[in-house]
Amino acid sequence: MAAKAIGKVSELDGEAPESTDFANYFCTYAYIYHQKDMLEDHKRTGAYYQAVLSNKRQLQGKVVLDVGTGSGILAIFAAKAGAKKVYAVEATNMAKHAQNLVDHNKMSHVIEVIQGTIESIQLPEKVDIIISEWMGYFLLRESMLDSVLVARDRFLLPGGALYPSHAAIYMAPIRSNLANQRTGEFQGSMEGWADFLQEMQHYYQVNLECLSDAYRTEQKDYYLHTSQWTDTHPQQMLGPAAPFIKYDLHNVTLEELKAPLRSEFVLHMTDGGPVDALCGFFDVWFRGSVENPVDNEIRLSTGPDPTGATHWGQQTFPLHPPIDCAPGDRLRVLLEVSRRLDNQRLLHVKAAITVEGNSIYAEQSKTPRTFRWNIE
Amino acid sequence: MAAKAIGKVSELDGEAPESTDFANYFCTYAYIYHQKDMLEDHKRTGAYYQAVLSNKRQLQGKVVLDVGTGSGILAIFAAKAGAKKVYAVEATNMAKHAQNLVDHNKMSHVIEVIQGTIESIQLPEKVDIIISEWMGYFLLRESMLDSVLVARDRFLLPGGALYPSHAAIYMAPIRSNLANQRTGEFQGSMEGWADFLQEMQHYYQVNLECLSDAYRTEQKDYYLHTSQWTDTHPQQMLGPAAPFIKYDLHNVTLEELKAPLRSEFVLHMTDGGPVDALCGFFDVWFRGSVENPVDNEIRLSTGPDPTGATHWGQQTFPLHPPIDCAPGDRLRVLLEVSRRLDNQRLLHVKAAITVEGNSIYAEQSKTPRTFRWNIE
Repeated sequence: MAAKAIGKVSELDGEAPESTDFANYFCTYAYIYHQKDMLEDHKRTGAYYQAVLSNKRQLQGKVVLDVGTGSGILAIFAAKAGAKKVYAVEATNMAKHAQNLVDHNKMSHVIEVIQGTIESIQLPEKVDIIISEWMGYFLLRESMLDSVLVARDRFLLPGGALYPSHAAIYMAPIRSNLANQRTGEFQGSMEGWADFLQEMQHYYQVNLECLSDAYRTEQKDYYLHTSQWTDTHPQQMLGPAAPFIKYDLHNVTLEELKAPLRSEFVLHMTDGGPVDALCGFFDVWFRGSVENPVDNEIRLSTGPDPTGATHWGQQTFPLHPPIDCAPGDRLRVLLEVSRRLDNQRLLHVKAAITVEGNSIYAEQSKTPRTFRWNIE
Repeated sequence: MAAKAIGKVSELDGEAPESTDFANYFCTYAYIYHQKDMLEDHKRTGAYYQAVLSNKRQLQGKVVLDVGTGSGILAIFAAKAGAKKVYAVEATNMAKHAQNLVDHNKMSHVIEVIQGTIESIQLPEKVDIIISEWMGYFLLRESMLDSVLVARDRFLLPGGALYPSHAAIYMAPIRSNLANQRTGEFQGSMEGWADFLQEMQHYYQVNLECLSDAYRTEQKDYYLHTSQWTDTHPQQMLGPAAPFIKYDLHNVTLEELKAPLRSEFVLHMTDGGPVDALCGFFDVWFRGSVENPVDNEIRLSTGPDPTGATHWGQQTFPLHPPIDCAPGDRLRVLLEVSRRLDNQRLLHVKAAITVEGNSIYAEQSKTPRTFRWNIE
């Protein structure tokens, strides 16, 4: 399907997003359909609702900034909780629907909707609280946290709080049919290529053999080196998840966020292998700031859940071929997450994995095996 | 799925496409997978092969320009037919694969691959023939013909020929389940919205009623005012197709092409209604120029075909509700095709339709019924 229609940004108080970024990224968020998808993820919307409404004491009489307000729902929660003033900033034309929603819910005396990017708008005052739902797949995809940090550095009062305040990415070893399935699809694709070469030779006397390596690379990237959205069942886990990175959002800098992220962690294998895939997901916490902690801490988790995934699901990273290991072994994983050069809102992930322990597999695992994936 | 990766354009002789246009449009063509899809459409590739190889007399010793060469296949056909020199121009990194293919098929003494856009490159000479596969869905989607006309005006010698030389868009009245199916999906979507409103009220005490009209419009646009790729069977046709527009590509101007296109045509109903949809498709012809006509005229048709569609399929435009008419009636259709303001490579189509004839339906059809669709 072709790229979706791109709404023209008008009546800006700030500036429009750079046009390529708009084409690649912002356009999706201009559809109510997409907003509905996020709103009816009740683990998500419910967590924000609880974080705000069960901490009214922190909101009462405060000035709040909502970064990327979308439909305006978080701004409305903040107003319901007693905020004195809420600035609701949205780059896309969804801002007009947010304004409509604010008016009809009789919140316009508290909420001011501003269409523009956080990088370009001005506010008449600093704020006590910044609330934002900025998380992408595997937490960091979309790179929207950048804008929240810009907002923090530009607009948050000393001692002010971010909602959410903390975030962590986890990885777990899982059993999964994904690697198998993808390998089969890749092989099928290469068989199709062989037929195609014969046809091209036969029908048009052109030899396309010289493109085979490039095609194989392209198809391998697509089938074997791309992570996938999954709704993983906890029973698939072969051991507990381990944290790859933990952020205190009050302290992380834009520079840290933009740099490649390298960290080592250890996965303790409750069950034996083969480990078909790593399953990546994130949690965020609403704790307030040190100076203004919440009364009721709320956690939003996107991990494997027997009742079903949030709209983020999990990102499953297939391992080809799977990693053999025994119960009690440990997988030592050195992981690197970096932004794609061609589109900074997408990610590239590299892993080096060693099996440790007393099993035959650990003994044979002298050098780490390396893997790489794109998060599309 | 997120926007596909965008290859960096490097080693340009010309200039890179404007970045938003690259993000929206060119990026797809940088994948061999996509080139394969087009190459193995043998009605397409075979028509170009025949047009060139069965007209060797016209190619022999000539200078040829291939606009948007992709894998380089048409340039190779031209060289096989005896062209003296072929300039193969490609904006994306597919140019590197085209160069590879040219080298391995020992054509590099004839074919010069140039990476760049046709608007920005320079050629050392004018050319006798311009060959290009520029056609999009409903002929005009993608607006790539613009670049062919620019090439014609910049580089074609007087009396030179365009391959293809002529094009036409047709519309036919068809029976189809599409309108029914889409209406059902739209109703389902609005029922889902009603449930969603209740949930939002119940869980979060927020009333989203005021977004209902905008959501209905958005969903109507998506389900009822968007045409669809179909492989239409000739048996679905309720009468013969009528031409909406015919182009002599040697004469059409860029200004004519960019302006909204309005034309009236009449559909003769062999069978009675209800007419559920209009089916749009195109043909192109390889006739050469007046001064240099081909020996063997080739036609590439994308109309309903019992052996299956080309990769273009047909564009089916649902009619809600269907148009009633009797055998022998005529549908008078005033059609307007214009480029989308928000993305000039996408199209907007409007129709005003009247039933004429002796039937009761014709009698009742006093004022035209109007329809509109996007081609995504």
